[in-house]
Amino acid sequence: MFGEFTPRPGGETVFTVETTPIKYGPGVSGELGFDARAKGITRAAVFTDIRVKDLEPAQRALKALEAAGVDYIVYDQTAVEPTDRSFQDATEFLIDARADGVISIGGGSTIDTAKAAALYASHPAPFLAYVNKPIGEGRPVPGPVMPHIALPTTAGTGSECTAVAVFDFVEHQVKTGIASKFLKPAQAIVDPEFTYTLPALVTAATGFDVLTHAIESYTAKPYTARDKATDPTLRPPYQGANPHSDLGSLEAIRMGGRYLVRAVMDGADHEARNAMMYAATMAGVSFGNAGVHIPHAMSYSVAGMIRDYQPEGWPAGHDLCPHGISVVVNAPAAFRFTADANPDRHLTAAEALGADTSGGANNAGAILADRMIALMKEAGIPNGLSDLNYDEADIPGLVKGAIAQQRLLVGSPKSVTENDLADLYRDAMRYW
Amino acid sequence: MFGEFTPRPGGETVFTVETTPIKYGPGVSGELGFDARAKGITRAAVFTDIRVKDLEPAQRALKALEAAGVDYIVYDQTAVEPTDRSFQDATEFLIDARADGVISIGGGSTIDTAKAAALYASHPAPFLAYVNKPIGEGRPVPGPVMPHIALPTTAGTGSECTAVAVFDFVEHQVKTGIASKFLKPAQAIVDPEFTYTLPALVTAATGFDVLTHAIESYTAKPYTARDKATDPTLRPPYQGANPHSDLGSLEAIRMGGRYLVRAVMDGADHEARNAMMYAATMAGVSFGNAGVHIPHAMSYSVAGMIRDYQPEGWPAGHDLCPHGISVVVNAPAAFRFTADANPDRHLTAAEALGADTSGGANNAGAILADRMIALMKEAGIPNGLSDLNYDEADIPGLVKGAIAQQRLLVGSPKSVTENDLADLYRDAMRYW
Repeated sequence: MFGEFTPRPGGETVFTVETTPIKYGPGVSGELGFDARAKGITRAAVFTDIRVKDLEPAQRALKALEAAGVDYIVYDQTAVEPTDRSFQDATEFLIDARADGVISIGGGSTIDTAKAAALYASHPAPFLAYVNKPIGEGRPVPGPVMPHIALPTTAGTGSECTAVAVFDFVEHQVKTGIASKFLKPAQAIVDPEFTYTLPALVTAATGFDVLTHAIESYTAKPYTARDKATDPTLRPPYQGANPHSDLGSLEAIRMGGRYLVRAVMDGADHEARNAMMYAATMAGVSFGNAGVHIPHAMSYSVAGMIRDYQPEGWPAGHDLCPHGISVVVNAPAAFRFTADANPDRHLTAAEALGADTSGGANNAGAILADRMIALMKEAGIPNGLSDLNYDEADIPGLVKGAIAQQRLLVGSPKSVTENDLADLYRDAMRYW
Repeated sequence: MFGEFTPRPGGETVFTVETTPIKYGPGVSGELGFDARAKGITRAAVFTDIRVKDLEPAQRALKALEAAGVDYIVYDQTAVEPTDRSFQDATEFLIDARADGVISIGGGSTIDTAKAAALYASHPAPFLAYVNKPIGEGRPVPGPVMPHIALPTTAGTGSECTAVAVFDFVEHQVKTGIASKFLKPAQAIVDPEFTYTLPALVTAATGFDVLTHAIESYTAKPYTARDKATDPTLRPPYQGANPHSDLGSLEAIRMGGRYLVRAVMDGADHEARNAMMYAATMAGVSFGNAGVHIPHAMSYSVAGMIRDYQPEGWPAGHDLCPHGISVVVNAPAAFRFTADANPDRHLTAAEALGADTSGGANNAGAILADRMIALMKEAGIPNGLSDLNYDEADIPGLVKGAIAQQRLLVGSPKSVTENDLADLYRDAMRYW
């Protein structure tokens, strides 16, 4: 409707912005008691995991609950990559807990688990009822759920500000989720001190998740490209790029370009870790509004099919591809592919990331990809899918998983076929 | 805590962001029925004025209520500059209306009137109870008020996203207000079509209010300069500049520099008017979070003491200084004064506004002021206080009104004495 967003006959003319209230600052987890009371919570179910629970900012948060006279019970068994089963376990815990509010202290897995538990405890239904189609029924959440205060402990998913909870549906071996604006936490308490003790590779993986959220939402198909919703309820939660999401996305890209490598290299560089924590929340607000596309769609099978890979800094003993790594290994290939759909935006993203953009819009995809690759290399990210032990023979399986993510692929600035995805996985095998 | 915001011992480390949900787009007033139902409103009191009520987007909004089966009753007597008396009249109307929600369709005066009515109807109290000290008791609002959906009709005050309602306290001849996060509307529906029929001077006055909101919040004293709140409830609603408000402020400045004169010159330039409407909301979010300072503090007496001035485009027959004009006439003088407190920020603001900044940070105040003056001249804004019929003899009275606005002056990047204010009014007499 102004600037780059020009109306077209029959195109969408409206975008919406609904942001979780945010409190940000080193040490702010110590205000949890106040915020719990402000949300009317008298007894909280606290979702966390055994590692996070002992961190100083987590202990400070629990003490703050006590000081405020808020009763609580802790669930420290949150799964690293949650499943339908672990969501249901958490729900049962919450129902038994007789709590009137939920607090999550953890990464995206923990926050998503608390979202799901709060939903099913507030509006009981068979598990598949609210799950996205085609796996679930996609039934709309009937109304607000019990208050949920989220304390993210990684500078990563931005889940504290999004309306989605993602999980592995074990029976079908597929990643899916639940999406409803009622899943958005009632309050995000963003304390960067949680990240001061994170190892380098965790910081790198989560940080590249932030960066990719931001670049994907900035390059997503604009909201004006959708057909006008005949009914406001039919507007998708992921609206496409818009003036509001652009602003936050670009700033998160700028901050990632400036602070991510510093944050990885030195945990004592609190300025860099503070900045990445803020960038993560901002990117969460933006991609939660605009949506992500190809790199995230490609990531689910990369994570799901992983074998013989046990990254440093994660619980030992089972194969796992950290979410951020499963995303960013696809990103340079994906942006090379999408650049011609909107060269200017890809070039602007590259510039925000600190690239030399004198090569011009004709080379926007290569410029953006090269800058990302340079940062990945510096930060110790695996060199493409081959470093995750994938090879040509895996491509059909990877493509099958990616093409199923139509909910995300619909946000791509250009359409994507199975052949395109095969080419992208091939391109993503090795970057340097 | 990162970038420009460096910690200091005992300084504030936390900032918060709470944003009214926003829907933006030409034609979006037609979704009011849906949004009223989504907020649980079955019978609405609609605050507006007789001029606005007949505009096409307002009629569309009322029809949408009917179509959605939302009963409503219209109050079209909203005062242009509301007073304690007009706030109380509106409250009495709302109580008699037996409504369960409030809708405001108008400029800042109308939206503020609806905020006050919703407050006093939800939490009855003697009028001065919730009014800011020292005029009122400053009693905290006890909790949420009935849902309020705000439809701004000018690209100006940003009141749809702020937590403040401003009025003239007639007995003391002073402007004051009520501030509480519970005054924030539950939903902002921002339809730029309301502005397509506004005359040039109205567009200019409201547009410069936007621009000044944005520059004031960008140059406001940073949140880290305050002492750390010992209790979160003691954190002021105007927190000072912070990474979140900066982003929105700078973007609103950029948009003002690019679109404001176009919007004034040609009502048919819908792109420019769409852009200014969005900039107004964004500036509202930012200054509602960071605060304003000297130009706004100086404006209240400029508006209050006006005589022999009847601007084109406002109701004829009584003297009135439009809010945006009363603010922007002080702005160049104020920024010349504040620049040495943070030259880089003033220079960045000037650059965002489209100035040639090769003069460097040493000249930041002059560069920013000169750019503003050039835009004011182009847009047909009065040439300083002298064009509003003020002269040297008025200065003591103007200063008396300004120095009383400590709530705002505390946000100035440098301290301001009565002598300083006298100099500023003197400097604001004539700009070209």
